[in-house]
Amino acid sequence: MTKNMNRQELFNNILRKQSFLCVGLDTDIKKIPPHLLKEDDPVFAFNQAIIDATQDCCVAYKPNLAFYESLGVKGQIALEKTVDYIRRNYPDQFIIADAKRGDIGNTSEMYARAVFEFSDFNAVTVAPYMGEDSVKPFLIYPDKWVVLLALTSNKGSQDFQLTTDVNGERLFEKVLKKSQEWANADQMMYVVGATQGKMFEDIRKIVPNHFLLVPGVGAQGGSLEEVARYGLNAQCGLLVNSSRQIIYADSTERFAEAAREEAQKVQEEMAKYLQWIPNAK
Amino acid sequence: MTKNMNRQELFNNILRKQSFLCVGLDTDIKKIPPHLLKEDDPVFAFNQAIIDATQDCCVAYKPNLAFYESLGVKGQIALEKTVDYIRRNYPDQFIIADAKRGDIGNTSEMYARAVFEFSDFNAVTVAPYMGEDSVKPFLIYPDKWVVLLALTSNKGSQDFQLTTDVNGERLFEKVLKKSQEWANADQMMYVVGATQGKMFEDIRKIVPNHFLLVPGVGAQGGSLEEVARYGLNAQCGLLVNSSRQIIYADSTERFAEAAREEAQKVQEEMAKYLQWIPNAK
Repeated sequence: MTKNMNRQELFNNILRKQSFLCVGLDTDIKKIPPHLLKEDDPVFAFNQAIIDATQDCCVAYKPNLAFYESLGVKGQIALEKTVDYIRRNYPDQFIIADAKRGDIGNTSEMYARAVFEFSDFNAVTVAPYMGEDSVKPFLIYPDKWVVLLALTSNKGSQDFQLTTDVNGERLFEKVLKKSQEWANADQMMYVVGATQGKMFEDIRKIVPNHFLLVPGVGAQGGSLEEVARYGLNAQCGLLVNSSRQIIYADSTERFAEAAREEAQKVQEEMAKYLQWIPNAK
Repeated sequence: MTKNMNRQELFNNILRKQSFLCVGLDTDIKKIPPHLLKEDDPVFAFNQAIIDATQDCCVAYKPNLAFYESLGVKGQIALEKTVDYIRRNYPDQFIIADAKRGDIGNTSEMYARAVFEFSDFNAVTVAPYMGEDSVKPFLIYPDKWVVLLALTSNKGSQDFQLTTDVNGERLFEKVLKKSQEWANADQMMYVVGATQGKMFEDIRKIVPNHFLLVPGVGAQGGSLEEVARYGLNAQCGLLVNSSRQIIYADSTERFAEAAREEAQKVQEEMAKYLQWIPNAK
């Protein structure tokens, strides 16, 4: 049932759906509507409803693995069912394991097996701190993607990512440059935090063609218009994630409907910005 | 059943056992002795035998989560049983989740729940790239530990960790310094790769009192004597990990016996170096 997706296919989906929205499945058992708690698998029941309600407004889903791991085996089961459900019902969705993994070669190999062989994700987020051999094992799968952390949206991004080296280069810029020796824009994307809108110009100089996964629009405070203005490229080149603002839009029985309304609002705004791409379609 | 362990207790165990060995449980279903494959849970059966055979030669176990994740739900079950087994039978063992986690605050909170509430690890390895708010959620548990990546033992450690900033400080040094604002030596340890023996002197200048978790002795090529010479402090301050060299010492039915022999050899060498600590016991 493996469904890989290359850059052109992803771009085609974006044009067809007029959306570059990624819905983050940060499903917290403590935040889902109470009536779902009587289900056998409340987390999966929640995800299923959210996915059915939002799937035509988005091109990607991003389960945040931490939320599933916090529930142990039960969470793992809910995660596997979720990935499987998307694959089976909505094969045009790009599924990202938000995992921030990265370790020595033989260990990254195992993490890669987990997300690309055992599960059937299209992409995984990876932390760059341990360098080339911690990232490469994820790249041996054709048409599977690494989404490497570059500049994140949290306050702590200032602690190390902005450190300027002796050549005047900031750490996140070094990550963007160095990692291009490991893979090109057909297999690598970058996490770039949206709360740092003005940084997009600098980043696009280094990675003009890559897709950027942009968290932090919405709950974390970034502006979608600013991201689109500085971030869009000829093949869109953006996946903008929204999690809490969509999936927790409402905590009653109409949670899925409310999630859909939020997703649709974002999609409609994105449709406007997609007009800025010259000759799109 | 939660068993926390503070720095003094860990040091006491080290003195009593005359060992600062950590056995890495990087259990690969493809590498365990074939006769175990007929067990219900081969990974747990392997771990159980390794733990029983080595427990009096070591003070810590370090399951490498990637290896369990690569098996999906089954791996998760084997991991939970392993932690539980150590807790129940050998409560003086320090158990480290080798996970290299780290994400924005609300997500690190979930990772912390996974390793400290759902499971009962004593410590978790964390990647520093995302800074303070990605690390702090792990520190709210009293007497639970963060083992922060500083200088790793792999080739890729050279890509970013050795980058020198405008003040002449290398990135791993900045990590060592900055992170001391988040926690002290009672809750923070650092990963320092043993293949970089001569770096230990520099590192001990910055973190004289902290425990260092040292991978890379054995299969990855570091020298235990050199690590002890430059790394030992008044409370030992070292946990030296060995994985493959011990757990895969033999692939026949006598694998556990062979693992014990290897662990004992390391323990005996460590006993010599522990004599170097002035006034130890």
